[in-house]
Amino acid sequence: MYVHAVGAEQDRMKAVVLGAGAIGSVIGSLLAKRTDVDHVLVADRSVDAAKTLASKFERGKVEASKLDAKDVEGMARAFKGYDLVMNVVLPRFNFTIMDACLKAGVNYMDAATDLAISRDRPGDAVKERPYEKQLAYDARYRDAGLTALLGMGADPGISNIFARVGADRLDTVEEVLVRDGDNGSVEGHEFAALWSPDTLIEEVLMPALAFHGGRFVRLGSLQGEEVFPFPAPVGPLTVYNVDHEETQTLPVFIGKGVKTMDFKLALPKELATALQVFQRFGLHSGAPVEVEVKSTGERVRVAPRDVLTALLPNPKDLASKATGAASIAVVVRGTKDGKKAGWQIWFTLDHQATYRAYGFNATAYPVGAPMAMSALMMARGEISRKGAFPPEVLDPAPFLRHLPEFGIQVQEKRLA
Amino acid sequence: MYVHAVGAEQDRMKAVVLGAGAIGSVIGSLLAKRTDVDHVLVADRSVDAAKTLASKFERGKVEASKLDAKDVEGMARAFKGYDLVMNVVLPRFNFTIMDACLKAGVNYMDAATDLAISRDRPGDAVKERPYEKQLAYDARYRDAGLTALLGMGADPGISNIFARVGADRLDTVEEVLVRDGDNGSVEGHEFAALWSPDTLIEEVLMPALAFHGGRFVRLGSLQGEEVFPFPAPVGPLTVYNVDHEETQTLPVFIGKGVKTMDFKLALPKELATALQVFQRFGLHSGAPVEVEVKSTGERVRVAPRDVLTALLPNPKDLASKATGAASIAVVVRGTKDGKKAGWQIWFTLDHQATYRAYGFNATAYPVGAPMAMSALMMARGEISRKGAFPPEVLDPAPFLRHLPEFGIQVQEKRLA
Repeated sequence: MYVHAVGAEQDRMKAVVLGAGAIGSVIGSLLAKRTDVDHVLVADRSVDAAKTLASKFERGKVEASKLDAKDVEGMARAFKGYDLVMNVVLPRFNFTIMDACLKAGVNYMDAATDLAISRDRPGDAVKERPYEKQLAYDARYRDAGLTALLGMGADPGISNIFARVGADRLDTVEEVLVRDGDNGSVEGHEFAALWSPDTLIEEVLMPALAFHGGRFVRLGSLQGEEVFPFPAPVGPLTVYNVDHEETQTLPVFIGKGVKTMDFKLALPKELATALQVFQRFGLHSGAPVEVEVKSTGERVRVAPRDVLTALLPNPKDLASKATGAASIAVVVRGTKDGKKAGWQIWFTLDHQATYRAYGFNATAYPVGAPMAMSALMMARGEISRKGAFPPEVLDPAPFLRHLPEFGIQVQEKRLA
Repeated sequence: MYVHAVGAEQDRMKAVVLGAGAIGSVIGSLLAKRTDVDHVLVADRSVDAAKTLASKFERGKVEASKLDAKDVEGMARAFKGYDLVMNVVLPRFNFTIMDACLKAGVNYMDAATDLAISRDRPGDAVKERPYEKQLAYDARYRDAGLTALLGMGADPGISNIFARVGADRLDTVEEVLVRDGDNGSVEGHEFAALWSPDTLIEEVLMPALAFHGGRFVRLGSLQGEEVFPFPAPVGPLTVYNVDHEETQTLPVFIGKGVKTMDFKLALPKELATALQVFQRFGLHSGAPVEVEVKSTGERVRVAPRDVLTALLPNPKDLASKATGAASIAVVVRGTKDGKKAGWQIWFTLDHQATYRAYGFNATAYPVGAPMAMSALMMARGEISRKGAFPPEVLDPAPFLRHLPEFGIQVQEKRLA
């Protein structure tokens, strides 16, 4: 077990949390109580959101600021003097934020890439993998002596670490499967998304990338339906191919001849059916359309997805009410000493227990916690690699050591 | 075959067509070319819609006017001197229009009742049948020596006549089933409602009334799924219980001990699934909700169903493009001479053939044609009953004689 060297000068940290939403709140709450964190700047395009979040923590240690994630110069000025920027705004701002960090000479971390920039259609040859645009910062970060740790939440993040753990135990890797499941529910709500319904609808319906037989393929939406036996207490859930960061990096970085990699998300079958209906009728679209309001005769412009979002419960109102548990499970299969071998590595988190322990449910907490943990690991030199890279290129051992300190118990089993 | 007495004074007619939509267009086009019709007033809350419709017909014979279906006094003044008002606006205006006809001393006809006024919930004891509110005008119309022929389109309308034909051939009636099917499609559209999508969504999702074992029951939405073998060229289609006018009147007026009566509409299974999803998420609702438009930050009020309607093709743009055929089939089963007996009576109409012959497809035409036909029958004294009543109380023989003149070939078969 790593022993924390309290007060050692080189371990101390000043961090920016950019984005005062649910994940920013988790990171803020974990960093604010650390004695080895000197200062946290919570920044958001809404200064009110930033102030509300900062006000929950020790005055002086945590400050709030308005920052526009499109404004490279403004961000670069604000980031100067900090050790690390933790980007938890929408991933479409990753590039400007990475630019600002380079300008300010500050390390960078995020939890998602902008998958929506791919224009590849299902069945097309895969021409672009959006992650490549972020990985293209590698040389510049390395040259600047800076670290950009990409996708360091639950999944991507812990899932990439688990894939590395499994791959390290094998001589060759045949397949890596990432499975994200949650049997959670909220009483009184038939469908209760525990993260932004707007994001849920957009992400889940994007044509999913997968890596089949050694090449990237672009699948349609909600394909690959099957039941995955999540470990107790989650249990078996129906999962579907969903576009996700791991699919873009693990086939490239895990090595050992990996042929198959995909990411599947558990969705209630009824919700999957509903999402397919939304897509068929264009209700999933974020593009505004002109609508005649029958009761008034007015014409308004509104995106169908805005209306869907308005009809769904606000995840903020559900955060404390979710019961059940979430799990991220990674299966790695291949060979060891010439024989078939495989590992499943996972964690499960109970929503109510997590809420009681940390003030967040098992949807938000395991995204923010690995980021806060990794920030501290960077401050302590446990993550020292320079460049822009995903988590699976790092030594997984320190991650496995620290995750339990944050309430994330890593479990594993050998697969037959 | 009835021979039309051209020019006989008592047969001549002046009619108001209230509502310049698709059905009003069918009625207008059929009446305008009749030499026994002296004058048609096309009235609508939109004078432009009325004028556009009237301009298609012989100038002088057909006139346009603005009329507000909520304004009893204004309508009564406008109706004076006419023989008949044919109400083809939304059925929620039936009561004010019936009031205006009484005031003006003019006969009345419509094609639908306002089913939406029932507040009974599925499983509840049926406290109200909306049709009773229209039938309650019976004494007043009788006292005034006027006729209010209720629900005289395709279904209700022809379907009620068919039920009467079948019942008249039996000694006792066990069940009356009305089935409405359409195998039509429009190239390039997965779901192409040939009538108002707004009305389709509202009607189909209303809890359906049915008459089971001699009592009215209120079912949920889209229950009773089964395949009904519509006659060729329509063929077998999946049908669902839908709230409809016939269910409210046939069990009361058909007599002969009828125990079971229901109405089922054919819907593509995928559309039925979609409608259930809309209902589950509240997307079917016509009540405006506040929506945040993500792209602009504005807040607008819009009904989810307004948005759905905006996303679906406009039936006006599809009218000429539908291929396939529609059918209304009525099954009447019971006993004759102490033995089980039954009849199926139906018509089918091909969309393209109907469009070529009449300028309307097989969705709009068979609603308007029986109304125009019945108007002429009233003028000729073939419908002379006074009061407010549904079609099944009338002698069906003249209807069966005249329907073929309007291109509606009635077919029948004895059921095993």
